[in-house]
This record gives sequence, structure tokens and C-alpha cells, in this order.
Amino acid sequence: MNRWPIPDAMRQALNAARAAGAQGEVPIGAVVVRGGEIIAVAANQTREPPDPTGHAEIRALRMAAERLGQERLTDCDLHVTLEPCAMCAGAISHARIARLYYAAPDPKGGAVEHGARVFEQEQCLHAPEVYSGMGEAEAAELLRGFFRERR
Amino acid sequence: MNRWPIPDAMRQALNAARAAGAQGEVPIGAVVVRGGEIIAVAANQTREPPDPTGHAEIRALRMAAERLGQERLTDCDLHVTLEPCAMCAGAISHARIARLYYAAPDPKGGAVEHGARVFEQEQCLHAPEVYSGMGEAEAAELLRGFFRERR
Repeated sequence: MNRWPIPDAMRQALNAARAAGAQGEVPIGAVVVRGGEIIAVAANQTREPPDPTGHAEIRALRMAAERLGQERLTDCDLHVTLEPCAMCAGAISHARIARLYYAAPDPKGGAVEHGARVFEQEQCLHAPEVYSGMGEAEAAELLRGFFRERR
Repeated sequence: MNRWPIPDAMRQALNAARAAGAQGEVPIGAVVVRGGEIIAVAANQTREPPDPTGHAEIRALRMAAERLGQERLTDCDLHVTLEPCAMCAGAISHARIARLYYAAPDPKGGAVEHGARVFEQEQCLHAPEVYSGMGEAEAAELLRGFFRERR
């Protein structure tokens, strides 16, 4: 049997997530891509240094904006290993990300297909195209393993 | 006639907003307070350097976390001149802010009493106490003046 291949950008997001987990950060990774080129790779980093906004998506968007020298990341796609929360979905909208790819859904904290459904609100000025499921099993297992070890 | 006084922290948030407007940034300010002490003062800064996440609340929360050396800002209050968007409401929840004070409501972009209503969702693990209206006229006039000049 052949597994459907995980796209390269999501593979790199999973690698970033794994590395974060090894540092004691929640293993979630994000990658910004523009025209096939990887612009930013980041993982969750909320503990050291302490930053309540240090989710992978926020960090990747900030890095990409700095690197490209522009506030709006039009023509960029974001690949992230977990369904974004309200904070990150809002940031994705502000950044004008064209396409959002996420691996695993997050019923407990997600705000795309759950809860706040940020992109479906009238107040949302820009909604990306959304795709999910690529690398879902790998992303979910990284999180399960991380929290299992910490119980 | 005497105007009801604007609390000192909101006054400082309004001053930060005004200074940001003079720099060409959208005039919104935020202040983090703990036990009467001001921990962080910030304003919107999304243009220079370019940062789609550079809202006043996000910047104030990051500064406060860095200054206090802790990810969770338990016992801290946030004062902001405009109703937070989904991104900022999510960040306020992640930061475990105890009380949120905002001056003006934002029907077009707010996510507290409008739209995503982030704090009312099942996925929201921590909701602050919310108070609004102190300094509302001043905050709204700063924004109106800013956008009037740019039309």
C-alpha cells in the first residue's frame, strides 16, 4: 500500500513541530510559502521566552512579513499542523493569506471549522481558501505523544 | 458640568493611540496593569516594521509577558481604546488577562460583543471580565479624525 504523500511544506511544518516538542514546547509547526518558495518556518514558542502569542502561525506570519518587507502576505500560503485558534485565524485574515492548509482539526481550540468560525463572520475582511487533512495522522500523533509523556 | 473622569490607564492608552496616529499607524493604544502598576504601554504598529499581528493588544501582551517573565498574565488587566478583534481577543484569552476594559465598540471588526464573540465560545478556555465605554468618545474621535485625514 502506498500512503498519499504529504506535501513538502506540511512535511517541514511537521518537522518544526517535532523539534519544538523536543524543547518542551507544544509540537505545532507552520510554514509560509510563496510561489513554491518557503518564506518562513516556525513552531510554537510560548514558554521560552514567555509569549502568550507565540503560536506557530503568528511567529511564521511575523517572520514572513519581516522577510518580505510587507504587512500583507498576498500570494502567500500558510501550512500549519493544527487547525488555527481564534487568535491565529484572525492573524491569517489580517495578513491576507491566500490559502490555508492545516493537517489536524482541533475541536477543543480551533476557530476555523469549530467555535468562533472566524472566517465565516461578517467582521472578517479577508478569508483564505481552506484545505485540511494532509498529514493529519502525523500531526495528531505528535500532539498525543507530547501530552501523554507529560501526564 | 463635570465629565466622568477617564481612568488613568485608559488615558495612557489614548495617549499611546494619539502618538501612533501621528506616525501614520492606526491610532489604537493598549496598557497592561497589575495591582495599580503599569506593566506595558503599546500602540498599533503594523506598518513600520511591517507586522500583520502588530495590534496594540498583541504588542502590550508580549511586552508584559517579557517584562514579567511569564507566559500567563494572571492578575493583570488590559485597557485598550477599541473593542478587540478575533486575533486580539484570542490572545487576551491565552494570556489569562483578568479584566478587559475597552473604550469604543467596533461593529466592523470587533470580536467581543460582535461577530466571533470569542469569549462566549466553548473553545475559549479563559474569558476575562469585560467592561466598556470609558473614554469611548475620545477613542472614536481619534479614529474618525485619522481616517478623515486620509480620505
